[in-house]
Amino acid sequence: MRFLENLKNLKAYKTETTPCKIKLSSNESPFDLSEQLKEKIANKIKEIPFQRYPDPTAKQLKEILADFIKEEEGISLKPENFVLGNGSDEIINLLITIIDKNVAYPIPTFPMYQVSSDVARKNKIEFELDENFDLVKEQIDKALEKNPDIFFFASPNNPTGNSFNKDLINYVIDKGIFTVIDEAYIHFSDKESFLKKAIEKENVAVLRTLSKIGLASIRVGYLIAKEEIATQIDKARLPFNITYPSQEIAKIVLTEGRKEIKNQIKIVKAEREKVIKEVEKIKDIKVYPSDANFFLIRVKDADYLHKELIKKGILTRNMSHLPKMEGCIRVSIGKPEENEAFIVALKEIFD
Amino acid sequence: MRFLENLKNLKAYKTETTPCKIKLSSNESPFDLSEQLKEKIANKIKEIPFQRYPDPTAKQLKEILADFIKEEEGISLKPENFVLGNGSDEIINLLITIIDKNVAYPIPTFPMYQVSSDVARKNKIEFELDENFDLVKEQIDKALEKNPDIFFFASPNNPTGNSFNKDLINYVIDKGIFTVIDEAYIHFSDKESFLKKAIEKENVAVLRTLSKIGLASIRVGYLIAKEEIATQIDKARLPFNITYPSQEIAKIVLTEGRKEIKNQIKIVKAEREKVIKEVEKIKDIKVYPSDANFFLIRVKDADYLHKELIKKGILTRNMSHLPKMEGCIRVSIGKPEENEAFIVALKEIFD
Repeated sequence: MRFLENLKNLKAYKTETTPCKIKLSSNESPFDLSEQLKEKIANKIKEIPFQRYPDPTAKQLKEILADFIKEEEGISLKPENFVLGNGSDEIINLLITIIDKNVAYPIPTFPMYQVSSDVARKNKIEFELDENFDLVKEQIDKALEKNPDIFFFASPNNPTGNSFNKDLINYVIDKGIFTVIDEAYIHFSDKESFLKKAIEKENVAVLRTLSKIGLASIRVGYLIAKEEIATQIDKARLPFNITYPSQEIAKIVLTEGRKEIKNQIKIVKAEREKVIKEVEKIKDIKVYPSDANFFLIRVKDADYLHKELIKKGILTRNMSHLPKMEGCIRVSIGKPEENEAFIVALKEIFD
Repeated sequence: MRFLENLKNLKAYKTETTPCKIKLSSNESPFDLSEQLKEKIANKIKEIPFQRYPDPTAKQLKEILADFIKEEEGISLKPENFVLGNGSDEIINLLITIIDKNVAYPIPTFPMYQVSSDVARKNKIEFELDENFDLVKEQIDKALEKNPDIFFFASPNNPTGNSFNKDLINYVIDKGIFTVIDEAYIHFSDKESFLKKAIEKENVAVLRTLSKIGLASIRVGYLIAKEEIATQIDKARLPFNITYPSQEIAKIVLTEGRKEIKNQIKIVKAEREKVIKEVEKIKDIKVYPSDANFFLIRVKDADYLHKELIKKGILTRNMSHLPKMEGCIRVSIGKPEENEAFIVALKEIFD
């Protein structure tokens, strides 16, 4: 059973789950849904025929997602432009499964491109970012020489928080290679999305998720591409991949809860500016700019800081053991009072 | 973009969704959960922190599954014996992704083994069943010559309803090849499960699902294997693959709703015997024996019968266009009144 040998060498994607009062470690929204919205959800849940399979096409949810995007970005989409996943993880996994061989992505970035490539035993073409974590043409050229079948660009990038140089993403797109722009954090950015490009060009797809805007619990991610492309990719996904409750909950939240969600995003963006300004005042901390609902800091001893924060009941994500991430800790934006507690804790530790 | 060419040739798994008053097409339980249980679920749903990721280990759910199995079958399992999937579909997909190359399964059987193999571009080793849809040693020997990395045996088999010859499954197991016994329908069978073997032997795993016993909506499937094997496979799955609502709902139903679920299974088994006896009385219909919550019939003109049943508001699954399935229709067991309506309809059509 050779597959067991392969698995023994596999590094799984693991997140730290040390229980802490303040959780700033998973780039979730800090806000739960309102009581009124939860009441509506609970009533809807009671109507689910639990013994039945969910709608395999999730058509109503796709229509609501299209409407949400239309209102936000003025772009008209049809259900046929969408591929839904059990989180965008599942779509990344699917894309890596169906492409031929070679998967290109910059490092550091979201670990699922690496994990899914390893699981599916595809070749990884990893290329480095510059000291500000932006794309570098020479590095991309080197990657292009290795015959990539697909490029993943998480922009805004996780765990670094910055958006990538648009021209260099377009440079890859113009080479005709299938290019996925993972816009998990786009709702927190003022930079332009690649959505328009995705519905114009055959070799571009955009990934989005509800996980960062208040619904990580229900695992709904989606890919948007031209109809001809999305419908082909859609054929390869698992037939009933979005659960019945997830479809119902997402539909309610994206319609009746839309204002609530948008308001939460607004607060997170404002809090990000506030927190970053405060952290920048501490002289032994380097803060990287962020277009996301988190930010990255660099300190001398990340292990020490991470542990001291846990002692004070604050969980952040220690990134310092990853390549190019020495001394780095990723901090999600919390509720205003959580961010204040974080600042107070930092000041105490650095005093 | 070569992957698009591959996808164009891909036959997706599609189910017929013609709306009918009586749905006997997807082997779901005909019974919804009770109002009391739904009330409990709704109350629990309100407590979910919707913005948070679900427990990636689903530990509590695994403990409850272990307890459910302990009570039913007297076998003690630990959470480490389980791999959970977004339906057993996801686990089939995962197994086919991680094995080296060659996937063996009998035909006709559950179509996901073929679909997942095609998506992951693995080699299919398909071998035929006999005229009673049971395993044939010569066919298995031929498959063994082709160097299979994994065998899938759905037993009871879908769409045929019968359980396979145990000795021949053991024959494959004894060859040391990784053998998966997909026991999606085992709760409706009085035959012995392979569970004991799965926790004894390194190369055996059993697949189960909550989809056939009343919870298709929430997509929870699971694999059981020896701890050393299950923990390795578990490393390769998507990290947050069971949604927060699905974990909470499954936990409630498998504890407070356990009696309800078991009672539903009992009714379905009794109804199966009743319906089959009635259908056997119609002389132009051949009925195959069933250990599942459905049964297979063979008629002269399956397309005609399938359409006539739809006209009468009854949806069954027309299997007649699949290899070895000429004239075959699969019929799920419904509620007593639905089964009666089905019998009445059949009699009218065959009169």
